[in-house]
Amino acid sequence: MELLRVRYRLEGNPADAEARAEAIALEQTVEVPKPVAMREPFIAREIVGRVESIEVSSDGSQRATIAYPVATTALDPAQLLGVMFGNTSLHADVSCVDFDPPASLCEALAGPRAGVAGLRELTGVRGRALTCTAVKPLGHSPKALADLLRTFARAGIDVVKDDQGLANHEFCPFEARVAACLAAAEQVADETGHRVLYVPNLIGTPERVFGQLRFAEKCGARAVMVSPMLLGLPTFWELCHRHASVPVLAHPSHAGALRYAPELLFGKLLRLYGADAVIFVGYAGRFGIPRATCAAIAANLRSEWHGLAASLPVPGGGIELRDVAEVVRFYGHDAMLLVGGSLQLEPGQLLERSCAFVDAVRGASA
Amino acid sequence: MELLRVRYRLEGNPADAEARAEAIALEQTVEVPKPVAMREPFIAREIVGRVESIEVSSDGSQRATIAYPVATTALDPAQLLGVMFGNTSLHADVSCVDFDPPASLCEALAGPRAGVAGLRELTGVRGRALTCTAVKPLGHSPKALADLLRTFARAGIDVVKDDQGLANHEFCPFEARVAACLAAAEQVADETGHRVLYVPNLIGTPERVFGQLRFAEKCGARAVMVSPMLLGLPTFWELCHRHASVPVLAHPSHAGALRYAPELLFGKLLRLYGADAVIFVGYAGRFGIPRATCAAIAANLRSEWHGLAASLPVPGGGIELRDVAEVVRFYGHDAMLLVGGSLQLEPGQLLERSCAFVDAVRGASA
Repeated sequence: MELLRVRYRLEGNPADAEARAEAIALEQTVEVPKPVAMREPFIAREIVGRVESIEVSSDGSQRATIAYPVATTALDPAQLLGVMFGNTSLHADVSCVDFDPPASLCEALAGPRAGVAGLRELTGVRGRALTCTAVKPLGHSPKALADLLRTFARAGIDVVKDDQGLANHEFCPFEARVAACLAAAEQVADETGHRVLYVPNLIGTPERVFGQLRFAEKCGARAVMVSPMLLGLPTFWELCHRHASVPVLAHPSHAGALRYAPELLFGKLLRLYGADAVIFVGYAGRFGIPRATCAAIAANLRSEWHGLAASLPVPGGGIELRDVAEVVRFYGHDAMLLVGGSLQLEPGQLLERSCAFVDAVRGASA
Repeated sequence: MELLRVRYRLEGNPADAEARAEAIALEQTVEVPKPVAMREPFIAREIVGRVESIEVSSDGSQRATIAYPVATTALDPAQLLGVMFGNTSLHADVSCVDFDPPASLCEALAGPRAGVAGLRELTGVRGRALTCTAVKPLGHSPKALADLLRTFARAGIDVVKDDQGLANHEFCPFEARVAACLAAAEQVADETGHRVLYVPNLIGTPERVFGQLRFAEKCGARAVMVSPMLLGLPTFWELCHRHASVPVLAHPSHAGALRYAPELLFGKLLRLYGADAVIFVGYAGRFGIPRATCAAIAANLRSEWHGLAASLPVPGGGIELRDVAEVVRFYGHDAMLLVGGSLQLEPGQLLERSCAFVDAVRGASA
């Protein structure tokens, strides 16, 4: 069985590291209590992650290596992220520090199409580092950006990319900008023989980004740039492997997205983007989120906000059956309680525990 | 002029807060030194962010409110994230804690289509909180999951969602699972009159997710779930507003993605997904990344790895012209140096400074 090995840094007490790592191995695969997972031989053998090693570092933090059967990833670019770090990314005491995909996963995702060799061929640069700069700032017209590019090209810079903040603005439309910069690059190439590699920035929803790519390629762009952590890695993969025929540069914008406060991310951003209901990990359960944060998330989802529809708060993250009534009282009527593994905890009691859940919510809401 | 107000928490010295906030206002819009931005009246007036207020909290951290002209967002779901927190998310001393979009942005993004009211109508639940659970664990067959759903439905649970780990696995294909669970829901509805709302999980690249949505809607699914922070928020927006006719639940999986170590995210994940060149913020510049991290990113991008093409390391993030030669020696030949604002620093010296950049790289590479 091929294994995907993932390495985590744990910040807690070294004495708890083994149990913490076991909990991650379950969270990232079956997300039910261990006895529930172990009831089925196929699941126990082929699905659940296994803790392979735990090392304590000199600073007291621990490195846990967990091996996941690669089949759990379905060899899919989105599911892979879910298996590596989906729910576990919500635990403040864990970071994901390394991974070691098996050959089948590398083959499925396929990696760079051009890479270093392709970019060297495209630019004609060998035996030295390459030079790159950006046309900017945001606010310039296509003509002003093309003028900048012309100067950079005359100086002999190898690659000139758009600033990652250049989108499809009224004052500088994408198509006009790309056409002007490509024309400027050709003009300098005719003058000096140096054809700078101009790299347009693509930004937007998938439909927009794929449309921008088609336009850029049609106009003669020989490479493009996107911010994968802004578009989402699965969209990035599809761009690289299903749409682009030219090399793709990755920009780091938005890669530190965890630093959104939870009441902003879950309470406002997801609502603004269109979530009808937002599942979040709450104070009751295994994630230890403060009550005040949960109250703020719920309030933000339900508040008056420029006429946007309210979004349904869905607290989850390990609510125990015994806590249901209290949780209902905390969030009030306009909420949906998500109780998962707790219902399956006792063999043969699924219907009873499910009925108890329903009764507790009805009772507390009365 | 309509303004997008964003609130940041700063962890540094309160005496530096004003300068820090000014730097963010530039970073998130023009990303050039202030004198460069201020040369153009249109850019100074209509593009650059403005620090509106700074408050010091009792714990010594500061809250800075910055107002951005809404035009910088191009009213685009991806560009909005770039303006709010793109590069600034890479600074360890800043978190993004709140935002206040103007009406035009709310109108453009549009928010929930069904929301609380629509979900209440769909489930027929009024005057109390709703109940929700998940069919799981990963590893069960479609039939086993449908059996679970049947029991939950008989207990009267309102909403049963897929576990977010259920993808399109060989042992449990998406289409078979959705069809089996929808049939089970209908069967219990016929028996008991209670029609549970079954919510399939969609996961994959945009093409796959939109295909799964079409299949689920065709089969009669009345709601779906995705993990927006795994798919990427722009893809999530397009799903909600350009593809889905049913309500969409948001799952928090992968929302803590910052906790990826930089050498993993920039060195390995982006390469595996297909980046031909990876821009990252390096030790030289304004982000203060350790040299060892930079070396590890570059090594990971270029190492032998299951036959994947090497990806070109592109250190950036404010390299100064005077540091170029040293940076080239640090990363070696297989790298591309990204020098941006520094080239534009001196008015009238663009060509000279660009030539100096090119010469420094060529000289250091010789």
